[in-house]
Amino acid sequence: MSRLDPLPEQAGHASRWPPPFLLYLGNAADDLAAKTARGLAHWRPGWCVGQYRDVDCRATLGLADLDFAQARAAGANTMIVGVANAGGRMDAHMVDHMIAALDAGMNVASGLHERLSAHPRIVAAAERNGRFLFDAREAPKTPVGNGGRRAGRRLLTVGTDCSVGKMYTTLALEQEMHRRGLRADFRATGQTGIFIAGSGIPIDAVVADFISGGIEWLSPARDDGGWDLIEGQGSLFHPSYAGVSLGLLHGAQPDALVLCHEPDRPHMRGLRDYPLPALAACLEANLQAARLTSPEVIVAGVALNTSRLAPEAAARACREVEEALGVPAEDPVTMGVSRIVDRLQASFAG
Amino acid sequence: MSRLDPLPEQAGHASRWPPPFLLYLGNAADDLAAKTARGLAHWRPGWCVGQYRDVDCRATLGLADLDFAQARAAGANTMIVGVANAGGRMDAHMVDHMIAALDAGMNVASGLHERLSAHPRIVAAAERNGRFLFDAREAPKTPVGNGGRRAGRRLLTVGTDCSVGKMYTTLALEQEMHRRGLRADFRATGQTGIFIAGSGIPIDAVVADFISGGIEWLSPARDDGGWDLIEGQGSLFHPSYAGVSLGLLHGAQPDALVLCHEPDRPHMRGLRDYPLPALAACLEANLQAARLTSPEVIVAGVALNTSRLAPEAAARACREVEEALGVPAEDPVTMGVSRIVDRLQASFAG
Repeated sequence: MSRLDPLPEQAGHASRWPPPFLLYLGNAADDLAAKTARGLAHWRPGWCVGQYRDVDCRATLGLADLDFAQARAAGANTMIVGVANAGGRMDAHMVDHMIAALDAGMNVASGLHERLSAHPRIVAAAERNGRFLFDAREAPKTPVGNGGRRAGRRLLTVGTDCSVGKMYTTLALEQEMHRRGLRADFRATGQTGIFIAGSGIPIDAVVADFISGGIEWLSPARDDGGWDLIEGQGSLFHPSYAGVSLGLLHGAQPDALVLCHEPDRPHMRGLRDYPLPALAACLEANLQAARLTSPEVIVAGVALNTSRLAPEAAARACREVEEALGVPAEDPVTMGVSRIVDRLQASFAG
Repeated sequence: MSRLDPLPEQAGHASRWPPPFLLYLGNAADDLAAKTARGLAHWRPGWCVGQYRDVDCRATLGLADLDFAQARAAGANTMIVGVANAGGRMDAHMVDHMIAALDAGMNVASGLHERLSAHPRIVAAAERNGRFLFDAREAPKTPVGNGGRRAGRRLLTVGTDCSVGKMYTTLALEQEMHRRGLRADFRATGQTGIFIAGSGIPIDAVVADFISGGIEWLSPARDDGGWDLIEGQGSLFHPSYAGVSLGLLHGAQPDALVLCHEPDRPHMRGLRDYPLPALAACLEANLQAARLTSPEVIVAGVALNTSRLAPEAAARACREVEEALGVPAEDPVTMGVSRIVDRLQASFAG
């Protein structure tokens, strides 16, 4: 039975799936299917030693193509299943790959709906190799929320819709605040964020009564003057998932909100009959709901995902939002988030 | 191996836990601990042949005290565990009672957090006797919500807080509508309601992403001109559970709301630092959120739980609410709900 290398002292990182990582892309049909792996490669490049692509894979992260033995030889401690497929299922071929990675000496961590731990052959391979399995969508058990005021500063990203850039924005805020020497910690609420942060809670997978409690657990009181930057999920205006967004908002007890939005999106994600809410109405609904647990909450700014707009149109969209709402609006990808952080610093100085 | 009597053709009733029932009170510390059994005895007296009380039981429903063999002889097909204790756990003594009930020839259904199916001895007893186990807090798997407009009329009870009488009010509305010859079906979202209705979904126990989807599943399109009367849970203003309430509101797609409230409650249930919301603000927040999936939603009335008020004070409280909000306000227990149903009929005539 082989043993893992001593674990790196990685602040906050789950000790059962330490980096460095091999990113498993399998037979990803396109780049979107490899979204989780892409997030890791973008935000934590130093943790990623290579990618594993199967014969029909149509995605790439531009990393070295390694097989399981090569990855282990290159220092990979954990293989991350960073791919989504229809239904989040593992076929027999994929199960064989999980086992081969364990036999090569890596831990395996997965963001799929289907649990690694549901496969007796994978569990047996982990046991015989002394390796660990981690299912990022398995929610930890926490108390229910209590709404008690807790110390520390917290910022939450909220959205007009799902998939408008809340995780990216939150990580960009962390990066910019670190650049300025501020204490700030990204708090992950989805599987990609959890892999990037090394910990977190898959908030859409907790039992319904525990949504706000899960966030109170994720982001407890802090007294070091630093900020918790909490990754938002969904939207108060998405008829499928708004309950998650409201519980998240109450549990986060945010001092500041950043509203994320994609201009010109034709309708709510997956729902042709539902138009996007107006920005001002969406912001007001979030502020109203947030005031239940955080009466003094402010808006730090708006993050626009302008990836489908030409540069001039993107700049114009930001200007229009700024004029309408009176807060900074910028695209975190192409413009950064410095003016949002300026406003945050000015609002909470001293 | 004995066999159950042929199942009664009980409309909507789960065939795995058919009435008549023996209500198990165990060592309930007080009447509140026997809340589930009490709800059944009140709303479905014809289904309840007796109660089982252990030596330290401090609750009673006023039913015949029967042991397991006597209950079976009296026709009981299912024993309902209608008691809550600290933590919702079963001690060894209680496990022995479940087994004795199965050995006597009854099915066993439970509303406890702890699952019957988690006890190998209980499962074995069910198997050897050819009986069924039912855990009312085990949520069925459903699709996520899609917000699609569906046919039929739906009413939802909402609340300023938890435990203000939403289930009672919903059942009182069903009773009054049946009395008038209207088609109406109570749709249960909590364990007591599920036992009373014979089916339902424990909405606080579903995975967070499936709250609205669970309610769409519970209350599908109907085209017989009848009403679905959906039992609400929690409150948009309760920091622990508001996510459940919002998902329920969106999934219910309600044509009408009834707001439930207990006047003079000092603070939100379990949270001393949270006062109750003002009635008008609470109603407006519920209407605003409901309009996402049901733009024409109306308020049918307010149900006041005046059990802690003297009769004159109760009447005055109702008058004040009526004047402030312009809709009927009555206590379903002491005054009935006829004026609320009047308004419902007037609003949706023809």
